[in-house]
Amino acid sequence: MQTNELRRGPRMAQAIHDAALRLLVERGYDGLTIEGIASRSGVNKTTIYRWWPSKDAVLAAALTASDALALAIPDTGSLRGDLRALARRIAELVTDPATAPIAGALLAAGADRPQLAVVAREFFADRLLQERAMLDRASERGEVAAAVDPRSLMDLLAGAIWFRVFVRGEAPTEADLDAVVDTVLYGLDGRAEVG
Amino acid sequence: MQTNELRRGPRMAQAIHDAALRLLVERGYDGLTIEGIASRSGVNKTTIYRWWPSKDAVLAAALTASDALALAIPDTGSLRGDLRALARRIAELVTDPATAPIAGALLAAGADRPQLAVVAREFFADRLLQERAMLDRASERGEVAAAVDPRSLMDLLAGAIWFRVFVRGEAPTEADLDAVVDTVLYGLDGRAEVG
Repeated sequence: MQTNELRRGPRMAQAIHDAALRLLVERGYDGLTIEGIASRSGVNKTTIYRWWPSKDAVLAAALTASDALALAIPDTGSLRGDLRALARRIAELVTDPATAPIAGALLAAGADRPQLAVVAREFFADRLLQERAMLDRASERGEVAAAVDPRSLMDLLAGAIWFRVFVRGEAPTEADLDAVVDTVLYGLDGRAEVG
Repeated sequence: MQTNELRRGPRMAQAIHDAALRLLVERGYDGLTIEGIASRSGVNKTTIYRWWPSKDAVLAAALTASDALALAIPDTGSLRGDLRALARRIAELVTDPATAPIAGALLAAGADRPQLAVVAREFFADRLLQERAMLDRASERGEVAAAVDPRSLMDLLAGAIWFRVFVRGEAPTEADLDAVVDTVLYGLDGRAEVG
């Protein structure tokens, strides 16, 4: 029986991850329970507890294995175009009912849930390699200095969108997103000068 | 006895609010319970439930009545000085152990806790009047166009700081904060040109 369980391991893990993320989306973090995951995945509660001691541990594994928040870095030929496209994708991710609760859980993790906070930190640290590549292309085109720090840029771009959505409770319009990009690129007063 | 309770009402409410915020700071949102609030405040659990149906309702009332997150808008004589001072205060608020869990709870509310999200939205909407006054002064000094939207400015400034702290799990240095301000004011490439 143990051999059987091992053999079924990857498929069971996948079922547990899927159930955890679906329930997070449907019921929110507070509504997510190991019991619910067991019932949705069809995997025995005891088996789940043998692998993961808490719902945060299940969720951390599910988020790490999932590509639910995958965000391809655009390559439009200009930094402004790349940032506009990226801003739209971030805004979609944090407002689309299919992904917003997952993004929200990652955001909320930093305040209160150490186990998930580690996943969030690794997730966003991994993304920096891609974001650096986008800035390297811009620097090769002569659009920005090579010294521009992708972390500071993404703090501003993602932070502004997340703040608008999760704190103010409003979805940014496309004009709002373009204004964020232009402020970051050209400054508060520089925006008007750019066509 | 009912008369007695009414007379003690405001003082009891204050004790309940204080206990809720202190426990939030000590134990985090997930560790906060009505039982804990009752025990800390010395007010009977049944009495608390008569006024508020849930811990979110207690917390919403406590946050509304509290000045824990009060943030005076600086008036240094220049927009750059004002924004630098404001960025330092925001960073302090979200990293100081005495206030960070309260700020974190407001931030996390948007993702998952509708009752607290309303408080967060009202709190940040109220602040916009002060933030507009800061921009009006800058516009009178000729530093920015009158059309600059305080909401977009604060989304960038607060969003970048919150993202760095709550998502990346890092405290920004003073140089990081100044760089955020200069990017918002002068753009990604304009920063180097400013003394």
